[in-house]
Amino acid sequence: MAPSTLPPSPRRCARRVAPAYGRTRAALVRAGVAALTEKGFSATGIDEILRTEGVPKGSFYHYFASKEAFGTELIREYAGYFAHKLEQHFGNDLLSPLNRLRAFIADAERGMARHEFRRGCLIGNLGQEMGALPEAYRAQLAAVFADWQARTVRCLAAARAVGELPAALDVERAAVFFWIGWEGAVLRAKLERGPEPLRLFARAYLDALQATPPAAAPPTFRRS
Amino acid sequence: MAPSTLPPSPRRCARRVAPAYGRTRAALVRAGVAALTEKGFSATGIDEILRTEGVPKGSFYHYFASKEAFGTELIREYAGYFAHKLEQHFGNDLLSPLNRLRAFIADAERGMARHEFRRGCLIGNLGQEMGALPEAYRAQLAAVFADWQARTVRCLAAARAVGELPAALDVERAAVFFWIGWEGAVLRAKLERGPEPLRLFARAYLDALQATPPAAAPPTFRRS
Repeated sequence: MAPSTLPPSPRRCARRVAPAYGRTRAALVRAGVAALTEKGFSATGIDEILRTEGVPKGSFYHYFASKEAFGTELIREYAGYFAHKLEQHFGNDLLSPLNRLRAFIADAERGMARHEFRRGCLIGNLGQEMGALPEAYRAQLAAVFADWQARTVRCLAAARAVGELPAALDVERAAVFFWIGWEGAVLRAKLERGPEPLRLFARAYLDALQATPPAAAPPTFRRS
Repeated sequence: MAPSTLPPSPRRCARRVAPAYGRTRAALVRAGVAALTEKGFSATGIDEILRTEGVPKGSFYHYFASKEAFGTELIREYAGYFAHKLEQHFGNDLLSPLNRLRAFIADAERGMARHEFRRGCLIGNLGQEMGALPEAYRAQLAAVFADWQARTVRCLAAARAVGELPAALDVERAAVFFWIGWEGAVLRAKLERGPEPLRLFARAYLDALQATPPAAAPPTFRRS
């Protein structure tokens, strides 16, 4: 933001009010996401977010109805950002389906490394803290996991269809298994401040999928 | 604690000071563990712990040097309690080694159900919150995971030795995989307020161990 001693240019002046409001709101959301992925909701004060962005204390309610509403918006923004990231990877036709999942995993590791493994997953952090959060967040967080899982099911089904994964693999269960374990891996990577938990989980998970034995009882070996 | 209007019995009077101190301290630890497994460290106020136990506000430092020292003690106590629980299960010669792990999993589910899936794992909660915690907790929490993993390695190695798990299984990796995924499962069980994430993870994990392909074989899509 320009220091107040500089006169705004006529163009900026003419368009100032609405864009400044939008910019400030977006900056508060960015700072909120950064704080929540690093420390969680309970440890994050609104004052500190406002200070980070140089927004005057007391003007928070100009942007959000309450801290609860701010949290709702942060979950919504993060979910949107993350859905886009998953779609970029899972929709990448240049890679085989299983390599799309590997590419997402590698990208997530780079993302954590960029912040020295201080920041984890906003949804996982808030899930862990649910006991201290507004009850309305519960359904919102569960819906985000359901969305990520549905996208992952489609990627795993595509991998199964091209023979990268066994025909007998239950892709619905495998997708839930991934997100349960992945959140645990992100937690450990934050604790250890390094990539090893992500790598160990990813290797063990992919090995497990590929080792799926053929469905035992019924005589059908492959899906037609 | 007896209401102050009742005169203490001579016996209680003679032994009062030290046991009362010990009892109050133990009660504060219990209340602290309950709060930290439910809400985490950042969302838990010392005042609220003192209130729960009817300990006068301001007397906290009579029992602990600081909130940080209190947290250190809670991690230590919880780790001791949990090591005992693991040893009870993993040392149970009446069950096969793999059934000892299954028994631990079933016990953990019952433990969460007892508190309506509101309370998770103190170590997982604090690991998730590390960005907002005293840096000294990091090594302490990592050491607790290392201890749990070492106990699990011994259980899995025993299962491998009796043929319950494939000879080629890397039990060190499998133990880390378990604790990474299990913490994720506890997180999801808290979020969903139900046992399904624990059950799904446990089934998928045990299936994965049992499907481990022979060591010499290159990664294949199906078992021969």
